[in-house]
Amino acid sequence: MNDDSSARILRALREWIADAAPGARLPSTRTLVAEHRASPVTVQRALRTLVGQGLVESRPGVGTFVREGRTARPVDHSWQTAALRSPQVRSQGVPLPLRDAPPGLIALHSAYPDRELLPERLLRAALVRAARGETALTRAPAAGMPDLQAWFAQELRRHCPAGVTPPAPSDVVVLPGSQSGLSSVFRSLVTPGQPVLVESPTYWGALFAARHAGVEVVPVPSGPLGPDPAEVARAFEETGARVLYAQATFANPTGAQWSPELAAQVLDVVRAHGAYLVEDDWAHDFAITGEPRPLAALDDAGHVLYLRSLTKSVGPSLRVAALVARGPARERILADRAAESMYVSGLLQAAALDVVTQPAWRTHVRGLARQLGSRRDLLLSSLAEHAPQVTVEHVPAGGLNLWARLPDGTDVEELARACEREGLLVAPGTEWFPAEPPAPYLRLNYAAAHTAGFVEGARILGRALD
Amino acid sequence: MNDDSSARILRALREWIADAAPGARLPSTRTLVAEHRASPVTVQRALRTLVGQGLVESRPGVGTFVREGRTARPVDHSWQTAALRSPQVRSQGVPLPLRDAPPGLIALHSAYPDRELLPERLLRAALVRAARGETALTRAPAAGMPDLQAWFAQELRRHCPAGVTPPAPSDVVVLPGSQSGLSSVFRSLVTPGQPVLVESPTYWGALFAARHAGVEVVPVPSGPLGPDPAEVARAFEETGARVLYAQATFANPTGAQWSPELAAQVLDVVRAHGAYLVEDDWAHDFAITGEPRPLAALDDAGHVLYLRSLTKSVGPSLRVAALVARGPARERILADRAAESMYVSGLLQAAALDVVTQPAWRTHVRGLARQLGSRRDLLLSSLAEHAPQVTVEHVPAGGLNLWARLPDGTDVEELARACEREGLLVAPGTEWFPAEPPAPYLRLNYAAAHTAGFVEGARILGRALD
Repeated sequence: MNDDSSARILRALREWIADAAPGARLPSTRTLVAEHRASPVTVQRALRTLVGQGLVESRPGVGTFVREGRTARPVDHSWQTAALRSPQVRSQGVPLPLRDAPPGLIALHSAYPDRELLPERLLRAALVRAARGETALTRAPAAGMPDLQAWFAQELRRHCPAGVTPPAPSDVVVLPGSQSGLSSVFRSLVTPGQPVLVESPTYWGALFAARHAGVEVVPVPSGPLGPDPAEVARAFEETGARVLYAQATFANPTGAQWSPELAAQVLDVVRAHGAYLVEDDWAHDFAITGEPRPLAALDDAGHVLYLRSLTKSVGPSLRVAALVARGPARERILADRAAESMYVSGLLQAAALDVVTQPAWRTHVRGLARQLGSRRDLLLSSLAEHAPQVTVEHVPAGGLNLWARLPDGTDVEELARACEREGLLVAPGTEWFPAEPPAPYLRLNYAAAHTAGFVEGARILGRALD
Repeated sequence: MNDDSSARILRALREWIADAAPGARLPSTRTLVAEHRASPVTVQRALRTLVGQGLVESRPGVGTFVREGRTARPVDHSWQTAALRSPQVRSQGVPLPLRDAPPGLIALHSAYPDRELLPERLLRAALVRAARGETALTRAPAAGMPDLQAWFAQELRRHCPAGVTPPAPSDVVVLPGSQSGLSSVFRSLVTPGQPVLVESPTYWGALFAARHAGVEVVPVPSGPLGPDPAEVARAFEETGARVLYAQATFANPTGAQWSPELAAQVLDVVRAHGAYLVEDDWAHDFAITGEPRPLAALDDAGHVLYLRSLTKSVGPSLRVAALVARGPARERILADRAAESMYVSGLLQAAALDVVTQPAWRTHVRGLARQLGSRRDLLLSSLAEHAPQVTVEHVPAGGLNLWARLPDGTDVEELARACEREGLLVAPGTEWFPAEPPAPYLRLNYAAAHTAGFVEGARILGRALD
């Protein structure tokens, strides 16, 4: 099978077709084989290509004919099945929590705070200043703008106890959102097929990134108090994993905040196994009554890789986050970031730094704590009144979500569809479990929807559960 | 070796140290083994961890002691060597063409157009409008803003001849820069270890992305006329590759533009092998006398994946590009993008669309052609006068670079260092070759530096070559 001849036959046939009348019959395969001194396989392949391009059509047993009209045809992409084969990642496409709510629906499924919770004036002013500044016209360094690196390092430094060397600005890699950090960490630190420990349940985006990186996700049970350190140790031992991914502050979805004792214990397990803890501090700006206590502040040997995002708290157009990492891991991740996307828009970096260094930003975060607290409590009381079948085992001290346990035997997917038909979007807990869920849960976000919908949302949920 | 006991010993020792005076001597290994009923290996590991954390220091043959001062110490990251092992990608870190030029140096190495070539007023006005608009506060869809998708589809549609079904807006995936598109394409369409054909020489960023995706790069010789289709066919046949990466319009670094005949021939080879052509139309806005002729416009069966970036032409803070892909490849790539970074800043997308739909944008692109033409010609004449040892075999009809052949036997790395000492930054051609360079080349960019430096730059180069 000579592939040059296949291309040659294609060219010749295409010229023939260009001169032919619509409906004309092509020479037979036998004739083409003789004429081009090619194998029947090669000729058949050329004919299939022309069919795929819509230039000819094949009538089995009769022959191949020049097509009549050639534009308004459905294009055939079936050849791609052979080129692509089965995906390495069985992906369900774009996941549910990223779905936009159609207008009028009550969106308790979403993960992005409602506009009234954003520092709108601060953000717009910062973006306008950035649009007029230097960064609009310059390329940012691969690791990020030095001033923004310094800000992220300084924020973490405030949490470092005496005796821990605080992170330096050069330990920071600025990212276009923390999802990119998760992807780079899994790609850079774990060989495909090798294990990564994760809490169960845990953030679906981390599971999504880990699966796309081709690593094996190993669930460790976790709950409102965080994971059991003995289970973490056992999982390290059994699997030989070198990476644990966790959210120690207002975890998504459970709302758990690890106690200082648990943090110290898990860190010791991580150290004893010569491993990394990827700490996703996604809710740093979303404390209600609690205070964020980053584990990364307790470690200076580089065991903790610290992810901190500004996208959710400052604004969804601001794709800016940071990874704080020390030692060779940081170098490996930075090379992955450069290969993936070269650098992060300096304009977005400048605007982010502008917002978080305004005195009004601290005021905003304090006000946000009050707003989130009353949203959380309103959703809790609405559920208690109108959906008493739902149990919220743990009232979170921060974050954006309630982790709602449903009666045993509830079909959560069916429940979600029933709620959607009535105008309520909820997220089945299934998406947060790396394996089979041990019980039916919903994640209910109290930050994305208008509070006006909470009572009605709870009513819909209560009725659907009946 | 029980790992729980290792963590337990660590905790106990840390408590012991907290109560101990600086300089105090820890119990001997033998004592700790007995006390904790652990193996000597486990005890040693706990002690090494404490040394790594700077809490104790080990004096071989004497014992282990509580450290005196605990903050200003160098942190030990050597444990990470075991956790990381050898990298799957041997990366040289952040590549040379991304280096910022120290002030005062003549930057012929860079890839980003000088500020005088950017549509500064258009860009700033668009960014200010976007800062005040809806997109500053909303999350963009995973595949991009529908209006921007439609613009990219429409631009390509203008090049489609009759008989080719033009791309639909839904065929477009908006990207945070074309580098991200390259990374996603290689990750999504090629299994690690499998081959990808690339022109040689070709864009270093594509080589960088391919290597980080773990795919095998197979060079196909190319030059000022593009590749030989018979060589492309042979490479497909020999390797079983299903993907060819190429720049058919003002290729970086050679400046080659493929003739319509060559384009048709290579497309036929690609079709005959049931393969994809990743067309990187990086210089679409950088025509001087030529006209861009995207190959993607000639194909509607999804053989061509078309990458189009706005970052270089509109502004470096605007990380916006697009991939046009049809059929299942597009779905697979979109899932990879969602896992990698969820979505692209809607603010940047809105600003990009604003710029390219202004009538002044067309005027700017026409003016840019004149400016690039005179920059190209000034660099050519400066080289002819002051560095006659340099041969530019092909005067490009577009793009930003001259591909400069040096006398046989020139050590290009040494030459680049010699030029830098004299104040000129040049990029050794080595970075653009997937394998050993067949001859010594420099890539000289005529868009990044101030034109005032061209004559002096050529003088430095000529002297260094002597």
